[in-house]
Amino acid sequence: MTRFRLTLAYDGSDFEGWQWQERTKPVRTVQGVLEAALRELAGGERVAVAAAGRTDAGVHALGQVASFDLSRDMDPTLLARALNGLLPGDVRVLEAASVSESFHARRSAVSKLYRYVIDTGAVQLPSRRRFSAHVTGPFDLTAMRAGAALYLGRHDFAAVRSAGGTVKTSVRTLTRSEIRTETVEAGGTALVYEVEADGFLRKMVRSLVGGLIALGRGTVTLGELRRALEAGDRSGWPAPAPACGLTLVRVDYPPSDERVLT
Amino acid sequence: MTRFRLTLAYDGSDFEGWQWQERTKPVRTVQGVLEAALRELAGGERVAVAAAGRTDAGVHALGQVASFDLSRDMDPTLLARALNGLLPGDVRVLEAASVSESFHARRSAVSKLYRYVIDTGAVQLPSRRRFSAHVTGPFDLTAMRAGAALYLGRHDFAAVRSAGGTVKTSVRTLTRSEIRTETVEAGGTALVYEVEADGFLRKMVRSLVGGLIALGRGTVTLGELRRALEAGDRSGWPAPAPACGLTLVRVDYPPSDERVLT
Repeated sequence: MTRFRLTLAYDGSDFEGWQWQERTKPVRTVQGVLEAALRELAGGERVAVAAAGRTDAGVHALGQVASFDLSRDMDPTLLARALNGLLPGDVRVLEAASVSESFHARRSAVSKLYRYVIDTGAVQLPSRRRFSAHVTGPFDLTAMRAGAALYLGRHDFAAVRSAGGTVKTSVRTLTRSEIRTETVEAGGTALVYEVEADGFLRKMVRSLVGGLIALGRGTVTLGELRRALEAGDRSGWPAPAPACGLTLVRVDYPPSDERVLT
Repeated sequence: MTRFRLTLAYDGSDFEGWQWQERTKPVRTVQGVLEAALRELAGGERVAVAAAGRTDAGVHALGQVASFDLSRDMDPTLLARALNGLLPGDVRVLEAASVSESFHARRSAVSKLYRYVIDTGAVQLPSRRRFSAHVTGPFDLTAMRAGAALYLGRHDFAAVRSAGGTVKTSVRTLTRSEIRTETVEAGGTALVYEVEADGFLRKMVRSLVGGLIALGRGTVTLGELRRALEAGDRSGWPAPAPACGLTLVRVDYPPSDERVLT
């Protein structure tokens, strides 16, 4: 039996998120199309795939990581090519490697980097609407940057915890939380927020961005947001930002787990 | 009667090009959806729209220019907002202005700038597949740059003239013809070709890019391409590059026609 690690990119627009869902109607998920492709390669056997981040419906990836076992060995380069031949065009395998049996895409991950893009011009370019949210300004960038700094470090993020979540703890440590501006050709200015942490709660990044947008528009003050964060007050937290602006950029693992067996 | 000029951006993926087409089956074109929206604003009257460049099926725009007359006057800013409210999300009005009656989007244009993007990595990112072609390398960039330089200046481009074309002359003057490389995050290198001229024949840019790709891959030599260009030899010219990589970036007009009446 060989364990494999894949690095995946996808356009989340036409997926109901990462996770396979048991529903009365069939639902298109990234895990679903990937497991269907692996089943073909495994001669009809079910292959269970774990992902570093179970991205929500509409969320994209540039560097999602997945792991699974195949009963037979396979050259990782050929595995990647075969999968890209079987997968739909909105999911691509960027890299494949055979890894140690201790590697698990989610449990071994030490940090994840997400990016959220907001187009702030009066009109959003059609070329950007799949991968950026559109929220018109003006924004108080200083207030937004103060909010991004507030998030940094170790906090109990119960205030941005989803109602349906089942995780044991909502304490997470943010090691990066930064906003930069980018000029969009023929399209005004975009705000790019990058956030890195040891883990994220469900919809957490979108809620953090929702807080930043509210700060930028002046509908909430930094003091109010700080108090809501400290009190774990979900009801006082601004609405989450739309899914389409969010991309899982990268997942990091300890050097020992990066060791490739081939 | 007031003449208006619009600057338009569109994602050409789901359009059968700019031009309205009489067909037994209805065909979705940019002109078609724009004229339908204008008809709403004109109280059911047909409004005929002219465009600077009649882009082909699948070709995009960041700065297409269109002109038309409305029997009543209208504030250009409100016209743009109303149109964006009526148009589908894959076409946006970036700017509207009332202009002199002598202005015509196509006839008044003095130059147009097109951009063609080729992703050359082994795997194309799903986020880029709508707006870039995917042609894997390696490419001889020196040969491609020599080809781009060959196109510069005044030539009879009969060699890249489409079979169905009805234009009087195929002589055009290229004032820019440049290739640059761009690093794509998590996706290798892209080649970006920009070409500016006083006008273009149908599918001309895609044929010019087809010639550059053939040079880069070594399937044609610079001498062969030069002879085909000089002889106006359509049969000897490499196949045109796919539509999805092409974007009409900008159209320029003489300063006098830029005068806005409001």
